[in-house]
Amino acid sequence: MSDAAMSDAIMSATSPQTDRIDRLRARLGASAILGRADLEWRDAGWDARNFDAFALARPNSTAAVARLLAWCAEEGVVVVPQGGRTGLVGGAVSSPDALICDLGAMADIEEIDTETGIAVVQAGVTLAALQQAANAVGLDPGIDLAARGSATIGGMVSTNAGGIMAFRAGVMRHRVLGLEVVLPDGRVFSDMTRVIKTSAGYDLKHLFIGAEGTLGIVTRVVVKLESLVSARATALLGIGDARTGLAIVRHLQARLPGRLRAAEIMWRSFVATTAATLGFDIGQPPFDAPCVLGIEVSGDDFDAASAALEDGLAEIYDDLGITGCIVATSLQQAERLWSVRERTEILYRLHPRAPSFDVSVPGGAIDAYLSRTLAELRLVDPNSEPYVFGHLADGNVHIVLNIPGPLDDAMRRDVERAIYRDLAAMGGSLSAEHGIGLSKRAALERYADPVKQQLSAAIKSLLDPIGICNPGKILVKKVIS
Amino acid sequence: MSDAAMSDAIMSATSPQTDRIDRLRARLGASAILGRADLEWRDAGWDARNFDAFALARPNSTAAVARLLAWCAEEGVVVVPQGGRTGLVGGAVSSPDALICDLGAMADIEEIDTETGIAVVQAGVTLAALQQAANAVGLDPGIDLAARGSATIGGMVSTNAGGIMAFRAGVMRHRVLGLEVVLPDGRVFSDMTRVIKTSAGYDLKHLFIGAEGTLGIVTRVVVKLESLVSARATALLGIGDARTGLAIVRHLQARLPGRLRAAEIMWRSFVATTAATLGFDIGQPPFDAPCVLGIEVSGDDFDAASAALEDGLAEIYDDLGITGCIVATSLQQAERLWSVRERTEILYRLHPRAPSFDVSVPGGAIDAYLSRTLAELRLVDPNSEPYVFGHLADGNVHIVLNIPGPLDDAMRRDVERAIYRDLAAMGGSLSAEHGIGLSKRAALERYADPVKQQLSAAIKSLLDPIGICNPGKILVKKVIS
Repeated sequence: MSDAAMSDAIMSATSPQTDRIDRLRARLGASAILGRADLEWRDAGWDARNFDAFALARPNSTAAVARLLAWCAEEGVVVVPQGGRTGLVGGAVSSPDALICDLGAMADIEEIDTETGIAVVQAGVTLAALQQAANAVGLDPGIDLAARGSATIGGMVSTNAGGIMAFRAGVMRHRVLGLEVVLPDGRVFSDMTRVIKTSAGYDLKHLFIGAEGTLGIVTRVVVKLESLVSARATALLGIGDARTGLAIVRHLQARLPGRLRAAEIMWRSFVATTAATLGFDIGQPPFDAPCVLGIEVSGDDFDAASAALEDGLAEIYDDLGITGCIVATSLQQAERLWSVRERTEILYRLHPRAPSFDVSVPGGAIDAYLSRTLAELRLVDPNSEPYVFGHLADGNVHIVLNIPGPLDDAMRRDVERAIYRDLAAMGGSLSAEHGIGLSKRAALERYADPVKQQLSAAIKSLLDPIGICNPGKILVKKVIS
Repeated sequence: MSDAAMSDAIMSATSPQTDRIDRLRARLGASAILGRADLEWRDAGWDARNFDAFALARPNSTAAVARLLAWCAEEGVVVVPQGGRTGLVGGAVSSPDALICDLGAMADIEEIDTETGIAVVQAGVTLAALQQAANAVGLDPGIDLAARGSATIGGMVSTNAGGIMAFRAGVMRHRVLGLEVVLPDGRVFSDMTRVIKTSAGYDLKHLFIGAEGTLGIVTRVVVKLESLVSARATALLGIGDARTGLAIVRHLQARLPGRLRAAEIMWRSFVATTAATLGFDIGQPPFDAPCVLGIEVSGDDFDAASAALEDGLAEIYDDLGITGCIVATSLQQAERLWSVRERTEILYRLHPRAPSFDVSVPGGAIDAYLSRTLAELRLVDPNSEPYVFGHLADGNVHIVLNIPGPLDDAMRRDVERAIYRDLAAMGGSLSAEHGIGLSKRAALERYADPVKQQLSAAIKSLLDPIGICNPGKILVKKVIS
């Protein structure tokens, strides 16, 4: 739905939803429903439109979600599932004709099986809660991202979240062994497999992973866990380009198998802004290089990890033309070094609502892609000097424009064309980890394989024929008949 | 199709397919088609019924596969895709009304991008060919299995192959970044993504992975590659049970992150048979233990890997009650030790066509599962003493009965009940890596989640409404209207 259409929808919606709420309360129990008045003063999360719905339900079990969806199907009420409400693409935006299904009351970690190395969790568990519970028994979910305190496992499944460890432990899709989903008609799809090896017919859980709640509502998840690492060493390096960074990554992966934990790259305008704001001298190495590469390596203890990292880097330092290196000498210094990469809010303070893009580019093509794309962005806007940074080892590049948002429609089209147009041909992706939601739907329609789009629409119609599950997200909204 | 129905089908098939072959030759070109006479004297692979089709086509491009499927759809001819013909569950079996689509002429390794760490291959490339090409540039497909010389990448995608490294690098599904598939109507689904991070709408490639060619024919694949390890050390250990083996696995994974390459377990009757046949003294440790665990660890060179393995094992040797250990002192000895695990043909020589089962069991539940299942199998047959072995770290357990096959229908039902019945509730899988094909279809119908089965049938109907693609595999055959 365009912003204009969304406004029209808001205008036309009034209050005769009270009857509906009463009927829903009768079905689910009074305590689980918040009406509009209750929503007004609550925090809607990243997008103010998240709470535009006429009501919010908080079912506390799979059976309650199934009752809720069956009721929505009967009444023709659209439903928007919400987890942490920290998604960045409008995937949780609701409209006045919609009911929110908030998974916050399903926040049990049902089981951690240390022998098998898996966790069984309800969809509303936050990543931080799962990390804490797993870490306590020497395990880890193998995925991490900045929104860990609010992002829920159900939301991360629905957006196929990525984060900084994807190159070694996969994205959320690779962490999910089993899944339970309530379908749009209230049936429960249950595949709570706890093993990685299964070839027992179509693996339909993958339909729901990354579907942003448009094909049903994720209620429970089996997550694969990894061994928790003992200690980590951190370094920032000055390098010439992404290709050099990838050579460093490959060297460390071969030299220290399984021990590279992070390889984050930042280009000059990003470093100059964040590092300078944080008090680093950006005239000195490594901050004066064309790119700064942040590296993290694990080891038995801090000293062993640091020694391994230093030895590994020494072997290639001159050959690869590394122009400066800081290896953290304490955990505190490591955190301070990482803040250069993590404190991205500095950019958004300078440029409120700065348009941001989240693409994947095959590693070997990153330098050429950026060179071409940044030149083309300067044709669109001569003052363009985007902040570019990302997860080097998996090719996930974030591009934040140095202007306030949102863009007007004409400029958005030109900017998107520069950033997205050759990604498919290169084997990249126009959304690495944020999802499609509302904000990338038009771009997906324009740049995705048409056969894939046709199949996607057919599958949406098959699973959700009346279009009640998160309509208008990923695919064009289907009107309820 | 039952064996009886298959025989009837063979009886009723005669030769008036000649017209069809002529029309197909006109469409595809004469050289690409083999008729029945050409098939008679060729090797049908693992299952003699593979070559029961009226003809075999060898398209040499995606466009040719698309023309072939469009022709099949027009004519109402069913098509059975074939790769290495070494599948174990009848997934490539054809009937006299079927045309085989042999992918053997699509065997190009189109590209290996060492910077991005990916390979782009045609479906007919064998695993061995890809391993060789990747190894030559210091990379590896990260998946390995005994049939590497014949198994094709397309076939491995279609059965979601597993193998010995799944616990660390995932199954085939996790190695596939991009996929091209010709749909049953001849349209080409193209998603040749080369990156691991993508959240750009429904990830439909996962529908085709493990679908055994029932939803279309895989033509090209982007495979993620890993760093090639320099050297490996091998040990065989005598242990008391799977739980002990898992404790060893967890210790080595934590102690030597990323360096555990294999953890293969063999129970007594398996070891007693294979090791004795190969000339080992099974009265001596480690072969006299309830289980033998084969471990492989990587390192910079053979000595370093062996030292790391020995040190790692020494730390837990007494605590975990390891009752004997051989660490290979040469690559030759390592190969000889592994032969105890790999020479499974010894079992089939003793018991021709021995019924074999390939299940996944969550690690922590393996001992209890086997104890219960083996007792129940003895109720079915008092002389039952199955050979049990498998990939411990991912819970993939192979069970081979000590009787010749095939089983009669009544006994098969009882045996399957003992082996399959509580797997779903435990979070296991009734097919870890072999697939469903024909031979496990009835078991899948009986034991799979009914909602999953309903959805699977609906998706099959959506993508292949007239039922031309590998009909009768995984799901019940739909008659062409």
